[in-house]
Amino acid sequence: MSAPVTLRGIGSFHVGGRVVEIAGKPGKEMVFSRGGMPARVDPNGHYLVEAMYVQYFLPERRRGKFPLLMWHGGGLSGVTYETTPDGREGWLNWFLRIGWDVYNSDAVERGRSGFAPPDVWPDKPHSVSMEDAFARHRLGETWSADAAAVKPIAGNQFPVEAYENFARQFVPRWTSTDDAAIAAYTALVEKVGPAILLFHSQAGGFGFPIAQMLPDKVKAIVAIEPAVAGDVAQAARLKDIPILMLYGDFIARSARWPRMRQFGVEFATAVRAAGGHVEVVDLPAVGIRGNSHMMMMDRNNAEIAAFINDWLGRQGLIGNYVGG
Amino acid sequence: MSAPVTLRGIGSFHVGGRVVEIAGKPGKEMVFSRGGMPARVDPNGHYLVEAMYVQYFLPERRRGKFPLLMWHGGGLSGVTYETTPDGREGWLNWFLRIGWDVYNSDAVERGRSGFAPPDVWPDKPHSVSMEDAFARHRLGETWSADAAAVKPIAGNQFPVEAYENFARQFVPRWTSTDDAAIAAYTALVEKVGPAILLFHSQAGGFGFPIAQMLPDKVKAIVAIEPAVAGDVAQAARLKDIPILMLYGDFIARSARWPRMRQFGVEFATAVRAAGGHVEVVDLPAVGIRGNSHMMMMDRNNAEIAAFINDWLGRQGLIGNYVGG
Repeated sequence: MSAPVTLRGIGSFHVGGRVVEIAGKPGKEMVFSRGGMPARVDPNGHYLVEAMYVQYFLPERRRGKFPLLMWHGGGLSGVTYETTPDGREGWLNWFLRIGWDVYNSDAVERGRSGFAPPDVWPDKPHSVSMEDAFARHRLGETWSADAAAVKPIAGNQFPVEAYENFARQFVPRWTSTDDAAIAAYTALVEKVGPAILLFHSQAGGFGFPIAQMLPDKVKAIVAIEPAVAGDVAQAARLKDIPILMLYGDFIARSARWPRMRQFGVEFATAVRAAGGHVEVVDLPAVGIRGNSHMMMMDRNNAEIAAFINDWLGRQGLIGNYVGG
Repeated sequence: MSAPVTLRGIGSFHVGGRVVEIAGKPGKEMVFSRGGMPARVDPNGHYLVEAMYVQYFLPERRRGKFPLLMWHGGGLSGVTYETTPDGREGWLNWFLRIGWDVYNSDAVERGRSGFAPPDVWPDKPHSVSMEDAFARHRLGETWSADAAAVKPIAGNQFPVEAYENFARQFVPRWTSTDDAAIAAYTALVEKVGPAILLFHSQAGGFGFPIAQMLPDKVKAIVAIEPAVAGDVAQAARLKDIPILMLYGDFIARSARWPRMRQFGVEFATAVRAAGGHVEVVDLPAVGIRGNSHMMMMDRNNAEIAAFINDWLGRQGLIGNYVGG
């Protein structure tokens, strides 16, 4: 067990959302709990939808100059940054222990943010299979329910033996909720910013646009294999925000990642051309090998966290202990 | 801000669940993130469903002799026990600060536990309206989107002014997932027990049966307005487990609660007849007035937590500091 950690605060809140009214539906009788009493249910009424859950951990000895907001990728929740599937400490604990105020969220539609009734979101949620996620996230070559047929990638850092545990973290996703997610994340940045955004994969499509909307509220961006970049036409809006983009290993052997990485590189080029500071780091190029798309869970996750923390330090974002 | 708290551990894990296979479905092309690359998606494959998310907080100076497991009620998640809708500390922090190892979970289907594809759970989830929840939980007489028409109950302890914030915590519920929830909670008790179960409302239908299945793993039960009791025919299985059942105020004016309370009282009588120790406490009878069904969020939530903690102490479940 690691050393104890002293916190000056732990808690949670929801941000954003809107009240919608559903009307004109027939009532029905429901039994909610087996053995419970039947209740007459009127589905008409008001619902608060599209809010977002945020949990915060505030260390007593704060060193990070601004809160660090962790935003997970698609089909996942804030669990991404907690204990790894094989039971090691995740990035949430790592950054907390070193002195960062950490705000970890579940995007709209997922986890403790809940999801809206079908009257509000008519399309169906999509669940990703274990086979699909394994290949898409470059956790290995192929996964099979037959353990003997699972093909890892030699040198891969993902704890493949704990893959079922990672699959327990998967949550269904809608493809129609980007605007709602952006609205809620915007509310979060307005509430706790100025802040540092650390986002993963799908959340590139939330973090970059929000930083372009609210550049004064964002002090740095750490983009972990962003699946989506920002608006190139608005690149200049990021010129005063230091940006680190991290990519793992095995990109070239993936069907999708070479092009997705290329979008990121092109966006970085546009921001630089507008006077901004963007570092695109392929981890193997700096001697950190074997990383999957889920590098915050990989065996060397602490090494990558330290790389990010050192970079934040070089941006002048780490100070002396505050508070206590 | 309250005093700092020192933890010897913070983390999360998932328990339980099962791998299912979906076969024979057509593939489709999907774009997961706006601006992202289209991906060919094969919905066939394996899915890990019905696992449960658990987050734990372990104080450095432990006084509780066993872990305290907090199980929320229907249509809600573990957020129930976190920061209250009006921003005060909830029971999770209260019990942590006084020295209990706290394990807070999201039942199967909800929050960070995720939910299964419709091939596995064919029925539709149900969302509870703000009007319905307000009345059902005895937060006040009636809620209306017209603030002037909201009718509180005189003397009610629920922070009605923060009701929208509470509604942000609502999550949809299925009515077909009781067995899956019981299986996952059983896995939790087997993993971290012997333990103390503190459960609310719907979770009476999980906590009582599991204690009856695994009486050696349960050292005490704190049932907060359980909506469902245990199996009267198996009452003797609880005879060595001290049980506290708490009910709030305004029961008599509710359409549903007089009968639901009566089921609890009858179950308590059966356990006592079998030699068990059950205390049924109506809070107004001990001078604690105005409590809603969501007493862990009420303005006097700390007073009720202290009442529970004192009761646990009288059962011999609080010791000297351990560890550190």
